[in-house]
Amino acid sequence: MTVISTHTTTGPELDEVLSAAAAAAATLRSTPAAARAEALRRAADAIDGAAGELVPLAHEETNLPVRPRLFGELGRTTFQLRLLAEVVEEGSYLEATLDSPDPDWPAGGRPDVRRMLIPVGPVLNFTASNFPFAFSVAGGDTAAALAAGCPVVVKANPGHPEVSARTAALVADALRSAGLPAGTLSVIYGEETGRAALTDPRVRAGAFTGSPAGGRALFDLASSRPDPIPFYAEMGSVNPAFVTPAAAASRTEDITDGYLGSFTLGMGQFCTKPGLLFVPADAAPEFESRLVAALTERPAARLLNDRITDGYERRLAALTAHPAVTVLHAGSSSVEGPAPTLLATAAADLLAHHDELAAECFGPTSIIVRYTSDAEALACARSFTGELSATVQGEGDDDLATALVAALSTRVGRVLWNGWPTGIAVTYAMNHGGPFPATTAPLHTSVGTTALRRFLRPVAYQNMPQRLLPEALRDGNPLCIPRRLDGVLTPPR
Amino acid sequence: MTVISTHTTTGPELDEVLSAAAAAAATLRSTPAAARAEALRRAADAIDGAAGELVPLAHEETNLPVRPRLFGELGRTTFQLRLLAEVVEEGSYLEATLDSPDPDWPAGGRPDVRRMLIPVGPVLNFTASNFPFAFSVAGGDTAAALAAGCPVVVKANPGHPEVSARTAALVADALRSAGLPAGTLSVIYGEETGRAALTDPRVRAGAFTGSPAGGRALFDLASSRPDPIPFYAEMGSVNPAFVTPAAAASRTEDITDGYLGSFTLGMGQFCTKPGLLFVPADAAPEFESRLVAALTERPAARLLNDRITDGYERRLAALTAHPAVTVLHAGSSSVEGPAPTLLATAAADLLAHHDELAAECFGPTSIIVRYTSDAEALACARSFTGELSATVQGEGDDDLATALVAALSTRVGRVLWNGWPTGIAVTYAMNHGGPFPATTAPLHTSVGTTALRRFLRPVAYQNMPQRLLPEALRDGNPLCIPRRLDGVLTPPR
Repeated sequence: MTVISTHTTTGPELDEVLSAAAAAAATLRSTPAAARAEALRRAADAIDGAAGELVPLAHEETNLPVRPRLFGELGRTTFQLRLLAEVVEEGSYLEATLDSPDPDWPAGGRPDVRRMLIPVGPVLNFTASNFPFAFSVAGGDTAAALAAGCPVVVKANPGHPEVSARTAALVADALRSAGLPAGTLSVIYGEETGRAALTDPRVRAGAFTGSPAGGRALFDLASSRPDPIPFYAEMGSVNPAFVTPAAAASRTEDITDGYLGSFTLGMGQFCTKPGLLFVPADAAPEFESRLVAALTERPAARLLNDRITDGYERRLAALTAHPAVTVLHAGSSSVEGPAPTLLATAAADLLAHHDELAAECFGPTSIIVRYTSDAEALACARSFTGELSATVQGEGDDDLATALVAALSTRVGRVLWNGWPTGIAVTYAMNHGGPFPATTAPLHTSVGTTALRRFLRPVAYQNMPQRLLPEALRDGNPLCIPRRLDGVLTPPR
Repeated sequence: MTVISTHTTTGPELDEVLSAAAAAAATLRSTPAAARAEALRRAADAIDGAAGELVPLAHEETNLPVRPRLFGELGRTTFQLRLLAEVVEEGSYLEATLDSPDPDWPAGGRPDVRRMLIPVGPVLNFTASNFPFAFSVAGGDTAAALAAGCPVVVKANPGHPEVSARTAALVADALRSAGLPAGTLSVIYGEETGRAALTDPRVRAGAFTGSPAGGRALFDLASSRPDPIPFYAEMGSVNPAFVTPAAAASRTEDITDGYLGSFTLGMGQFCTKPGLLFVPADAAPEFESRLVAALTERPAARLLNDRITDGYERRLAALTAHPAVTVLHAGSSSVEGPAPTLLATAAADLLAHHDELAAECFGPTSIIVRYTSDAEALACARSFTGELSATVQGEGDDDLATALVAALSTRVGRVLWNGWPTGIAVTYAMNHGGPFPATTAPLHTSVGTTALRRFLRPVAYQNMPQRLLPEALRDGNPLCIPRRLDGVLTPPR
C-alpha cells in the first residue's frame, strides 16, 4: 500500500502506485474469498473505530453537518463493506457454471466447460465531492472492486484531500493486517495525474462519480486508449418526480413536505435530488404557495466548496434568466451560502427547451413543472433519455400513474412509488444507474450488491483437469457456493 | 419487419427500418417470455425447413463446403435459437431480485426494492463473413438480442448478401407468425448505411464479429456518439497453443494431427484458429517434419471471397518477409486459392516482435514458435494481453502446464486443456470473449447462454404496488422463475 501525501502525485510516484497495484492484482486473484471478506470487515472496523477523528476532518473539508449526516454516512460506508463481505462469502457473484461432457449435445457434442467470473485487475476510482465517505476512498466503487478481488487506485476528490488520505491509510493498514498484498489500495492526487493513470495499461477499469462534463471527458479518454477499458461514470441526474391529479387532490401536504425535504436534503447536493416536480396546473397554486411558505423558513448554508458554489450560482443564474422560468422563491445568499430556491415553468416549455431546463442544477434548487393534461405529463416523461431515478406520486387506481411508471421504467435506473429518491438503500436489489446521460454504462449499478459485476469478467475452462481448476469450479463444490449445473441453478451442497 | 433488397439501403429506407425497430422495442418489452420463446423456435423451424435452399445459396456466396460444414453450421444456428428459447422460459437470466421492507436494515432502513433486467432496445448487429448462418442474420448475436427482447437490425455482411436477405425474410415471417411486432428483425446493406445506423439515437447497442480494424472503428463511432452506447466487437485472435516438453515427448503424433486439423479447418478462417504453436526447441524438428509431410497432401481451396483472399495474401507476405520468420512449408496457390502454409520462429523473436508476429493471419497459416526453456514459454504466455482462447497441451504432473494455465486464464476468454480451440460449443458455461484486442467488451461473451446479458440492463422498482410491477417481480412468483429473495437465490415455487 502506498499513500502519497496530499500534494499532486508525481509521475514516478504514480508509476510506483500502479506497479504495486498490478503486483497486488496477481496476488489477489488467488486470495481465498474468506480472506477478502475478513479484509473488508477489518476495513469497516478501522473506519468505525476512527469515526471520532474522520468525521470532524470531513466536516472541516466539506461543510457537511456532523450529525446526523456525516456520522450516518460513515455508518453507511462501513455497513456497505460488511454487506459485500457477506456477498463474497456467499459466492453466487462468481456465476460458477459447470457443463458436463455430453457427446449427444447438438452441433458437435459438449465438452466439459466450466465458467466463472474473475477480477479484471487494477481499478481506478475517481471519487465524488458530495460524499466524503460513502462515495469516496472507502465508498461504493472501492468496496465493490475490492470485493471483486481488484486492487484499487483512488483518485482523491480535491474537495476533501485530508479525509481521503486518512481513510486510505486506515483502510490500507486494515487490508494489510488481513493479509492482502501491498498495493491493494492507494490514493493519488491531481487532475493531470488522474488522467495519466487512466491511460496507463496497468489500469483495467475506471469508475467515477461526479459531473457530466468530467465523467464524459474521462469516458472518452478510457474509450480512446490503444486498449480501451470499461469506464463506469455516474454523472448525476435531474430525477423527475410526477404528481398525478389524483395524488395532488388527496395528498398535497404529504407531497409538498416530502418534496421539500428531498430537494433540500444536504443542500441539494445529491445526484438523486428531485430537480423537477411535475404538478397538474390547476393544483399548482396550492402546491407552490405551501412550498414558498415553507421555504421562507429555510436557512442558508455553506455548499461543499467554492467550486461547487460557483457552479451552482452559474447554473441557477442561467435557469432564472431563461424566459420560460419563473422564480417562485429566491433563496437569499448569505456569507454562509445560498438558501433553497424554487422555480416554475410550464410543461410545454420543458418540452420545447428540454436540454436547458432538464439539466442538473447541483445544489438547493428545484423546478415545479405545471402540466395541463395527462398527455402532456406523459410526453414529458417520454422526453427523458437516461435518469438515475424517476418518481411517481399516484393513487391506487390511477391510469396516468400506470402509464408514467411504464414509460419511466424504460428510461431510468430506478422508479419510485410515493416516495422520494434521495435515499439509496444498500441492498441486493438496488440499482443506481441508468442509460446515458445518467451513466456511461447502462448495464450496471454503482450501489447495491450487484455493483461487483462491473469489475469481473468471465473465463471458461475446457476439459481442464481438477488440479488446474479454481476451487469454485471443482467437482464436489469445495467452496460450497451456488452454481449452475448443466443449466440448472443449484444451491450449495 | 422490413427487408430491403440487397442494394445499398438508402437513407429513407434506413429511417423506416429504425422507426419500425423502435416501435417494436416498445411492444417486445411487454411480450410474454412464452411468446418470445415460441418465436425463436419458429425461426429455427423456418431455417431448418429451408436448409435445402439456404445451404446452396450460402455455398455459392462463400465457397464453404456444403457438407459437413454448411449443413452443420445451419444446425448449430437453429440449435442456438432453440436453446435460447429454453433460457427465456427458465427465466433466471432476468436476475429477478426482491428485497422485503426492513426498518432495521442498517443505514436508514430498507424499502421494498425489486430489481430485474429489461431489454436495452434496438440492437444493430454487424455480421461476420466466415459464418453465413451461425454468426450472421440469425446467428448468435441476433439470437441473443431477440431472446433478451430487443429488436435487431442486421447490417448484412457484403460477403453473402443473398443468403442474408433470404434468411432475414424467413426469420421475420416466423417471428411475425408468432405474434412479434413488425420491425423485430430487419436487414440493411452498405458500409455507410451501417455507420449511419450506428450513430442513430434509436439504436441502443451494437454487436460485431469481424476484423480488428473494422471492430475498432465501429467501437470508436459508438463510443463517440453524443449518447455513447455499448458496442460488443469480437475481433478475432491468434489463440496461442502451448505444448509442454512432457506432452511433446509423449504425444507428438496426437498433437501434430490435432493442430493441423484445427489450423486448416475451414481453410483457417476461424477466429479461434490456433495461429501460434509453442513447441520445445528440441522437439521442434520432429513436430515440424511431421507437419510438413502432412501438409504436402493438403489441397488448395477457395477462401470466402476476394477481399478475404487479398487480406490473407498481404498478411502472409508480411509474415514471410519478416527476418525472424522461416517458411517450413509454403502452400502453393492455385486458381482455386491457397493451400495451407506453415511458418516458424523463435520464442525470443516472438517476444521481440510481438505486435508483428502475434497478430492474426486470417486464413490457412500458422506459426511454430520454438522455445528453449520453461521460463521463455511462460514469458511468451505473459506477452499476450487479450485473446479469445489459449490452449495448453500438457501431462498430468506438469509444472509448466500449471504455470501456463494460471498465466493464460487471466489473459484470455477460454483456456483449453489437451484440445483445440476451433470448436465453440453453444452451452451454458461457454465463454467466447476476452480482454482487448480480442473484444471491446471483456465482461461479455458472444457465444453461450450468457450472451443475452449484453442486451439487458437493470431497473429497480421501489415501493411499487403489485399491479404496476412486471410479473417477474410480483408476490407469489407468477412466472415461476428462480429469484433472489432477501439475498438468497431461491428456486421457483
